[in-house]
Amino acid sequence: MGKLYKDKAHLFHEVYDYVVNRIGSKEWKEHDKLPSVRQLAEELQVNRLTVLKAYQLLKKHNKVYVKDKVGYYVQTPLPSLVDLDNLNNPIVTAYVQKNALSEIHQAKVKYNFSQALIDPSLLPNQYFSNYVKQVFDDYPKLLSTYSSVKGDEELRESLAAYFEKEYKTYVHGDNVMILSGSQQGIQLVAQTFIKPRDTVIIERPCFSAAIDIFESKGAKIVPIDITPTGYDLECLEHIMKQHKPRLFYLTPTFNNPTGYTVPTFQRKELVALAEKYRCLLVEDDAYHDIYFSEKPPTPVFTYDTVGTVIYLRSFSKYISPGLRMSIIICHHSIMEPLVSARFLMDNGSPLLNQKIFLRYFHSDRLQQHLDKLRIALQIRKEWMEGELANTTWQWHSPNGGLNLWVKLSDEISTDSLLSKALAHYISFVPGQVFDPSKQYKSWIRLSYSFSNEKLIKEGMEKIIQLNQE
Amino acid sequence: MGKLYKDKAHLFHEVYDYVVNRIGSKEWKEHDKLPSVRQLAEELQVNRLTVLKAYQLLKKHNKVYVKDKVGYYVQTPLPSLVDLDNLNNPIVTAYVQKNALSEIHQAKVKYNFSQALIDPSLLPNQYFSNYVKQVFDDYPKLLSTYSSVKGDEELRESLAAYFEKEYKTYVHGDNVMILSGSQQGIQLVAQTFIKPRDTVIIERPCFSAAIDIFESKGAKIVPIDITPTGYDLECLEHIMKQHKPRLFYLTPTFNNPTGYTVPTFQRKELVALAEKYRCLLVEDDAYHDIYFSEKPPTPVFTYDTVGTVIYLRSFSKYISPGLRMSIIICHHSIMEPLVSARFLMDNGSPLLNQKIFLRYFHSDRLQQHLDKLRIALQIRKEWMEGELANTTWQWHSPNGGLNLWVKLSDEISTDSLLSKALAHYISFVPGQVFDPSKQYKSWIRLSYSFSNEKLIKEGMEKIIQLNQE
Repeated sequence: MGKLYKDKAHLFHEVYDYVVNRIGSKEWKEHDKLPSVRQLAEELQVNRLTVLKAYQLLKKHNKVYVKDKVGYYVQTPLPSLVDLDNLNNPIVTAYVQKNALSEIHQAKVKYNFSQALIDPSLLPNQYFSNYVKQVFDDYPKLLSTYSSVKGDEELRESLAAYFEKEYKTYVHGDNVMILSGSQQGIQLVAQTFIKPRDTVIIERPCFSAAIDIFESKGAKIVPIDITPTGYDLECLEHIMKQHKPRLFYLTPTFNNPTGYTVPTFQRKELVALAEKYRCLLVEDDAYHDIYFSEKPPTPVFTYDTVGTVIYLRSFSKYISPGLRMSIIICHHSIMEPLVSARFLMDNGSPLLNQKIFLRYFHSDRLQQHLDKLRIALQIRKEWMEGELANTTWQWHSPNGGLNLWVKLSDEISTDSLLSKALAHYISFVPGQVFDPSKQYKSWIRLSYSFSNEKLIKEGMEKIIQLNQE
Repeated sequence: MGKLYKDKAHLFHEVYDYVVNRIGSKEWKEHDKLPSVRQLAEELQVNRLTVLKAYQLLKKHNKVYVKDKVGYYVQTPLPSLVDLDNLNNPIVTAYVQKNALSEIHQAKVKYNFSQALIDPSLLPNQYFSNYVKQVFDDYPKLLSTYSSVKGDEELRESLAAYFEKEYKTYVHGDNVMILSGSQQGIQLVAQTFIKPRDTVIIERPCFSAAIDIFESKGAKIVPIDITPTGYDLECLEHIMKQHKPRLFYLTPTFNNPTGYTVPTFQRKELVALAEKYRCLLVEDDAYHDIYFSEKPPTPVFTYDTVGTVIYLRSFSKYISPGLRMSIIICHHSIMEPLVSARFLMDNGSPLLNQKIFLRYFHSDRLQQHLDKLRIALQIRKEWMEGELANTTWQWHSPNGGLNLWVKLSDEISTDSLLSKALAHYISFVPGQVFDPSKQYKSWIRLSYSFSNEKLIKEGMEKIIQLNQE
């Protein structure tokens, strides 16, 4: 029996669930007789009254029926009002895809190389907790106030000023919208600008949720390869010419999963190409601040003057993922419908999270935290690469981000390696997840951000050994 | 000049904006010559270098061009990449609609009867601020943790237990999803279950954002009138039979804007009808806890046994709007695609807000706060009704909610009354906003929740007088 309900009085729900699960799994089929109250009470070691109460609720819910005054029988299930197979909705397809990845994430593992998340022990939890009280002192009516749809004005202006200072490019607070996570930004853009059968260019490989989002709007996906030296721009121009894409979703800085970065000269050309073919560039800059030896090139959006680039930037990922803090920067003509879509989507982010972030964003502690975090992540990366050096596997050492993109030998099946790995409490993500055409069968993504050095060393040794078995 | 930038170094951006606004408003047209640097510097009382810097940035951004080496001229505007008129996207239509309402909300008024929000001074701000620190002590890694897509398990289970206790109906934590506001729930449902040209039944009158959301998915809207005694169920059955609607979006408890409540016997029949015609019922229960003399009827979803009802319930509205806390309760077959859509939408609500709410939800203080709040709101309602009693206007005194739905004399134009009211710093919402067919021309919604008794008395006296002028 589960341990959901500590309260004895709720035991009968566990009995209820027990029966429902058996009916659901077809272990007990339509018109089968249920065990008698006495039998089930003994089997589950609960009071008979508990079982009786559960049976009565099952009857009320039309899951079972009564015959011969005493016997309980499995009811013919009523057809569900929502027939998933006939829903004809791309969301359902996305759901299946998502399940593949979330199954990996949900597996109980000791060596977690599948989550591109930062180890909570590297984050300033204690400091932040103390900080929050101060935020409430500064904004006593914080919890009773709605944010505007676009986000807190103070925060938007302060972020605009940050971008101006950092990149010497003019950004106004009105061109900034606060998001509850970058994924929301991708969703907003897709919802606003993508109609069924529009073409969307994505990088190959690409962050899987982005593919799901564009596919869920009925977009036709056309991939362009991303390599350690960027894109083949001739090929990109050819795609733009031929397919007239509505937008190109790109992660040119420490691409997920590869860690590759598009060089500065290509960034300028990208903007020119996009303007020429009237293709929006949706630049997702999730890992910008996680660099190692040197700062990455400035974002593509800084080369834009006419409103071609929609810029998404994450902040909370490497400070406090629990805050869900990202932003979108774009031209007024694009912002207007996005704000409208956001209004209908969730009416804006909670003000609390915005003000907490604002306070921290302005503190010296942020810079100190980032400096330390970069070093910690670089060391973890180097430990992982140290182990990989003992193999014939190939990878391009990234200058930032959270992942290594590793090519195994062609004959290795990453699926069977994953099964073996999971059985040994190790997780990673097979390459196909990042490609709608399911290539990259001999590639895997290894995240070095979630496990510490010791676990990285042990886990990598095990994977390498499993691969040789 | 605005007061955006306190920093002198940013003055040039104000100059920049000044020019952009004049070009945008066509005050300065294409190929017009801009004022000389000297002229504008004098006009705006800023340094000439500041103007020069702004002009240079305008040039860089292709807003102006230089001729004869010294003159600056307005550039032919480049076509925007996003042509709203040709976007052919229902979101844009919704935007126009939304603007009508948000213009009213944004007007600077002293007597605010347009916002169906609770006066922040009635909310437990100070208490909550102290509370939050405790939450961090209980969950030290709160800010470094993602919530699951569906929401925090502890919170979901505790809400399920609450519903079981309150309504004696079986709800499992798995049937609960945490939302960042109810509007997100409507959006999720619409996005998952509505295809273009599907029929959606709404109440007339109805919460305007809900209409916008369903229309933005291309739904065909069919209204059913809601009256102080509920719906005409024969008429509803006729609609269901004829239009085969995908869903019926209803707010049967203290409907917004009317405050009307659908009686218990109709609730049971509604579920039967919906099952018969395989029409989902989306029950939005935003004001359930704001009742006056007696508790409202139990929610429609408690009469559902097969998964016909999707139940939305708001909590934060009358505790801490800044938290954005609502939930959706539904059958497993409906929850599955909703979770998938939510994953793509924003990947779940921030954990921080959920844990803060959880702590408060379990405290005795919540009940005490609600008891006090109900009395305070009832008093405000009675003050407003006291003033209305001096007129020939008609309304049905509601037993809960935040609004009075008032019928003025037929000859009154609510639009012109609104213009006059706004000029006297009074706001309300004209009835047409709540009806896609723009009926209710002589009705208005007056919210008594945002202004205190004194302001209600003064403001109502003024409106009544304006109406007689």
